Amino acid sequence: MKKKINIGLFGYGCVGQGFYKVLQQSPNTNAVITKIVVKDKSKSRDLPVQQFYYQPSDILLDNNIDTVVELIDDANAAYDIVKSALKLGKNVVSANKKLIAEHLDELIELANTQQVTFLYEASVCASIPIIRNIEDYFKSDHIQGFQGICNGTTNYILSRTAQGLTYDKALSEAQELGFAESDPTLDVDGFDAKYKLAILLKHVFGVSAKPEDIFNCGIRHIKPAHVNFADNYEGKLKLYSYAKQVEDKVIGFVAPFVVPLSHPNYNVENEFNAVNINAKFAHEQLFQGRGAGSVPTASAVLSDVQAFQTGYKYDYSSTKYNDNTFTNDFYLKIVLSAHDESSLDAIKFEHTAYSEVEGKLAFKVGWVYFRNLIKVDFNSRSNMFFAVISEDFKLRLSEVEHAVGEALV
Amino acid sequence: MKKKINIGLFGYGCVGQGFYKVLQQSPNTNAVITKIVVKDKSKSRDLPVQQFYYQPSDILLDNNIDTVVELIDDANAAYDIVKSALKLGKNVVSANKKLIAEHLDELIELANTQQVTFLYEASVCASIPIIRNIEDYFKSDHIQGFQGICNGTTNYILSRTAQGLTYDKALSEAQELGFAESDPTLDVDGFDAKYKLAILLKHVFGVSAKPEDIFNCGIRHIKPAHVNFADNYEGKLKLYSYAKQVEDKVIGFVAPFVVPLSHPNYNVENEFNAVNINAKFAHEQLFQGRGAGSVPTASAVLSDVQAFQTGYKYDYSSTKYNDNTFTNDFYLKIVLSAHDESSLDAIKFEHTAYSEVEGKLAFKVGWVYFRNLIKVDFNSRSNMFFAVISEDFKLRLSEVEHAVGEALV
Repeated sequence: MKKKINIGLFGYGCVGQGFYKVLQQSPNTNAVITKIVVKDKSKSRDLPVQQFYYQPSDILLDNNIDTVVELIDDANAAYDIVKSALKLGKNVVSANKKLIAEHLDELIELANTQQVTFLYEASVCASIPIIRNIEDYFKSDHIQGFQGICNGTTNYILSRTAQGLTYDKALSEAQELGFAESDPTLDVDGFDAKYKLAILLKHVFGVSAKPEDIFNCGIRHIKPAHVNFADNYEGKLKLYSYAKQVEDKVIGFVAPFVVPLSHPNYNVENEFNAVNINAKFAHEQLFQGRGAGSVPTASAVLSDVQAFQTGYKYDYSSTKYNDNTFTNDFYLKIVLSAHDESSLDAIKFEHTAYSEVEGKLAFKVGWVYFRNLIKVDFNSRSNMFFAVISEDFKLRLSEVEHAVGEALV
Repeated sequence: MKKKINIGLFGYGCVGQGFYKVLQQSPNTNAVITKIVVKDKSKSRDLPVQQFYYQPSDILLDNNIDTVVELIDDANAAYDIVKSALKLGKNVVSANKKLIAEHLDELIELANTQQVTFLYEASVCASIPIIRNIEDYFKSDHIQGFQGICNGTTNYILSRTAQGLTYDKALSEAQELGFAESDPTLDVDGFDAKYKLAILLKHVFGVSAKPEDIFNCGIRHIKPAHVNFADNYEGKLKLYSYAKQVEDKVIGFVAPFVVPLSHPNYNVENEFNAVNINAKFAHEQLFQGRGAGSVPTASAVLSDVQAFQTGYKYDYSSTKYNDNTFTNDFYLKIVLSAHDESSLDAIKFEHTAYSEVEGKLAFKVGWVYFRNLIKVDFNSRSNMFFAVISEDFKLRLSEVEHAVGEALV
């Protein structure tokens, strides 16, 4: 019989309730929720009031509790809880992507020092076992890049705009269905997708990139003409948490991509998440599942709790073996559009394949230097939009010229 | 530093060579191939002749070799090798689905008795980490069924027939591309898919079903009219390694299904494999990747070898906790077609939704009892074809009548 796990649960919102429920229905997981700490004393809940506590110390200082499951919204409060729990020698499961993206290295070190375990599968694509597979199964392979659809809100909106809805209509629909918050900024501007990217960058490439050093452009300013543009390329617009190794450098950012019909991600629709991994030996691997939702997210939390029982830890082997440097110094091929042709000049093109005016929008397709591109705050520029149209990235301008020359031949 | 693994490799064909190659390129896997045993002494190979041995005992009786990697074609010879290796206290990796499907329980018991480890990820869908995820990540969930596209040959042929090619033309194309053998029987008649199904049945449901007790019908007799039929249902024909829990019973078989547009498997094309898992908590999870090929298959073998270093074993927890009985006693909804209307009478329909004649083929849609269906050897009846058109299976005739009644209202 495996050791019984005594859990202190922080948060009893959507995922917290889901976790309570799945644990109740999992008699084979020898774990019990001993206490639940919540913030709001006055809220009515579906469990007896005696189960709830209101001070973090009620769990943190309880020596019978060996495991903390942190499922609250507030990343700052979560940081304090997770840090204290690790310091006090408790194993921790968290689903808070912002907290993890911002403090991962510190928390890994703390867990190592304290000889406890910190797992967070639910923080990236909820139910999809992406961190676990990267850590374990693909440890012996060499992952060279990934294209992640890691945000269900934007994927739902993009699925609907591809079907002809305007962005505003698609967003309201997503809000009505509970797929989007009333303030959708974190989702539609690509922040949520960026936190997940930062976590994956660590596990895949051993790269510690701070969220503020990773570029994120969302989909707030998408217009039907952009959908048509992608369609003319036999593609669809998808918001990617994207990373790729180019020589000894790693590039990573969040932006809309034109995903071609032939790519497995082309068919990932609505609120689904997916991560497509390109591994040296295994080649393309697609993991698709629910990236949100009370019970699916809780399933990943439960799996982490179960993993404690077998002594499982993340190995971070990519950190040991890789010597990759994160860089924003590269060239990429994009389509840029603006309400007037002169706005296109905000970004210097190293090479322009073509430019055209279609209806009220001007389009320009060609190669740009990434550092020039990210000077523009696209999320706040309602008259501009861009999408990446090729996964062929170059570290040097001479290679761009070569690629352009080849294309012309 | 992890203990060095000394490997004895059986077989140096397509996957064997791939494994040699990926191990060479994996300096972080502390494993070395000490000896390679092959059958044919006269064949010229790309390695020095001193590396090759010709008697199984050259590896089996070598005390320096702790790990056997078995990658030969002949399932009977493989059985002897794997059994002897386990008996002699060596860990074993195998990719031989037929061997494993036929002898799994015996080999598990032997490995337990000898306190060694037997892993075989590459035997199901090659590069896709499906067994590992079922064993580990979804151990705390409850998998209720799966739809596997586990055979690349038939999936390639079905992709091409969906594009308008005849079966014969699609098969020759697959053969030219190396996706099909000159005698394609094992693939196109669903035997290969059945071996994989038998292995998954064990890991998902704890069910030990002998291959001879599992029904398999392939795609050899598919006609353009069948493709059109699926198309009219807004679906595509896919050959499924299918299993589902219905109450306390497990049903499992290999047959063509009409997969609807809305299903993630609808878009799994060509030589790709995929398994869609339906879990109680995580809901739908799709794993897609390469189900064949030298290096992708070898990547799974390498991952198993790497797993030995961390002491990993399959837990077979579904065997411990489930009390599922495999059954062929159920009702299902199919479309049956034949060259003449009278041939349709070969199978008794409990309820007929409709029948029609389209061109030279007669079609009948309705509910049949599975045991009546599998009396017909479809693989050898060139004038008949069937496909499953619903995943709604019933254990009792009264439920069929109820479902039919509901549908009519």
